[in-house]
Amino acid sequence: MRLDGPVLVVGAGLLGTSIALALRRVGVDVALRDISEENLRIASGLGAVNVDATAVRPQLVVVAVPPDHLAEQVAAALTGTDAVVTDVGSIKGAPLAGTRERVSATELTRYVGSHPMAGSERSGPVAASAALFDGRPWAVTPHETASASAVDVVTALAQACGATPVTFTPDEHDQAVARTSHLPHLLAALVAGRLADAPRSHLALSGQGVRDVTRIAAGDPSLWRQIITANTPALASLLHAVRDDVDTLLRALSDGDGAAVTAVLDRGVQGTAVIPGKHGTPAGPLATVFVVIPDHPGELARLFADAGEIGVNIEDLRIDHDPARAYGLMELSVVAAAADELLSALGERGWTTHR
Amino acid sequence: MRLDGPVLVVGAGLLGTSIALALRRVGVDVALRDISEENLRIASGLGAVNVDATAVRPQLVVVAVPPDHLAEQVAAALTGTDAVVTDVGSIKGAPLAGTRERVSATELTRYVGSHPMAGSERSGPVAASAALFDGRPWAVTPHETASASAVDVVTALAQACGATPVTFTPDEHDQAVARTSHLPHLLAALVAGRLADAPRSHLALSGQGVRDVTRIAAGDPSLWRQIITANTPALASLLHAVRDDVDTLLRALSDGDGAAVTAVLDRGVQGTAVIPGKHGTPAGPLATVFVVIPDHPGELARLFADAGEIGVNIEDLRIDHDPARAYGLMELSVVAAAADELLSALGERGWTTHR
Repeated sequence: MRLDGPVLVVGAGLLGTSIALALRRVGVDVALRDISEENLRIASGLGAVNVDATAVRPQLVVVAVPPDHLAEQVAAALTGTDAVVTDVGSIKGAPLAGTRERVSATELTRYVGSHPMAGSERSGPVAASAALFDGRPWAVTPHETASASAVDVVTALAQACGATPVTFTPDEHDQAVARTSHLPHLLAALVAGRLADAPRSHLALSGQGVRDVTRIAAGDPSLWRQIITANTPALASLLHAVRDDVDTLLRALSDGDGAAVTAVLDRGVQGTAVIPGKHGTPAGPLATVFVVIPDHPGELARLFADAGEIGVNIEDLRIDHDPARAYGLMELSVVAAAADELLSALGERGWTTHR
Repeated sequence: MRLDGPVLVVGAGLLGTSIALALRRVGVDVALRDISEENLRIASGLGAVNVDATAVRPQLVVVAVPPDHLAEQVAAALTGTDAVVTDVGSIKGAPLAGTRERVSATELTRYVGSHPMAGSERSGPVAASAALFDGRPWAVTPHETASASAVDVVTALAQACGATPVTFTPDEHDQAVARTSHLPHLLAALVAGRLADAPRSHLALSGQGVRDVTRIAAGDPSLWRQIITANTPALASLLHAVRDDVDTLLRALSDGDGAAVTAVLDRGVQGTAVIPGKHGTPAGPLATVFVVIPDHPGELARLFADAGEIGVNIEDLRIDHDPARAYGLMELSVVAAAADELLSALGERGWTTHR
């Protein structure tokens, strides 16, 4: 089943407006609905809409509203139209259960949940972009009685938006994101919460590690509260396991049992190794090269021009800021075999480097 | 008191050899000792040594051995020489206590612990660099009976290595790093440990967030076991607080108490805001601009050349790799007021961007 449109997008926030823009980019007709006139005006101004929402008979309705309102809006779309309906919320079990309570078994066959793995720290239609989903995974999560044609239409939506569809059951999806997204968010918030309590002078010893661990904890608490409370079963079982781990660590510390501490650390190392690397391949052995970057415009350009001439591909990079320092340290990750070449070639071009 | 040398460095690993190189850079005489002939050969080859360790009468001994051996080596240096002695371990209370048991009260006055906030995921002398400490904080942690002149010499060591000395009591230091380094490491390991248990297919939904949170968990378990077990009191009190937080979350999930979840998330947001920003100033409002980067050499150079011409200073950056994507997304952080200018100017130069 192709995505012929028109598509009605309900909710002109970051995701809804970005989906509308991505569909317009490939010529699919789009109508947009939102309770906020302001959001609709902005989204229209961006070119996200070309069809009147009050007159449209959509092939597909995309529900892109906050998690707490998903089931109600999905159900309204199923009963109010004969279209295929999807939602793009971060949790799939809860909206499915809520929808099931509100619609007939026949209507439910037209619903297939989905979840594009894309977002931004910003929100609202002004942050929207047709390119938001390009190359991202997009989970498609059919329930047991979903019709094959509805699954096809939602899969086609993901592809039309430039994403790569990946199929999960709703339950599998929720378990996966509990582990890869919600638990990391909660534990980042707990680490950050301990910093909020700290004497300010102690924070002078904050390095790049704690910055990395806590970065996502800056996310919107109201949105994350909705996500977390909607994924209770999967998250509770992981949190119980974490509490057991914390108890193990506390017992190991009080008993001076170094082997038990090492076991926890070893499992952590194993966990970092199973995260898929760049482009889905297991991460190969990379080496890090540090380069001192004077803190003014132009230096990064000069560095990458030099790296480009040297011909070594930069696999990853980060700027390591230290509060006490008047410049940045650039951490370049390259294939291990190329590190020495890069190091000496950068040195010859006058850069201060170390591994 | 100036650092006139000679300095005897005990332990030719990453830190010891880097300190030796940094001191040689400013003309201080350095002798080096290590149980490994191999390490000594490598460090000598790098130019880290110019004085014979068996004949030297040092002004300062720097003990740079693994945490488990610090007290024994500090005590040996205090009783075997009349020099000022420091160590560069990550924990300050435990080596002080162990040293106190082994030396006289008079000898103890010559000991002042310290801790340079620098390192590398690599270890050993081949990873050493004279530039490792440039601009980094270096904690100097005098105990109550340390002599003022010993404190001066250790402070001068930090400065000679290019670092910025920051004074803490040993106990304050250990509490600070428990919060800013050891607890983040342990919780990163717990998040990563849950990934090790996961069905591999679920990991396809791993995004940049979980990569950031778990990055430090890849660190050497043997070294981290020593650090963590040596900082038991400070770490145990934080772990108890984390366990209480986890219990609060579990109760909130089981009671459907959204407000309690929000409270934990809110405190996390506060914690991310108190980490000192770039150059010690509170982080100003930054905005993120995403740019699509084709995955071959030269593209980064072209991007930064364009950014340099546009004249907007890049405050921070990261490459966001998604397994499903055949290219990178570069996340550029710039002062919020400059984001729109950068976005449109990059767009004019043909880059695919979004916020």
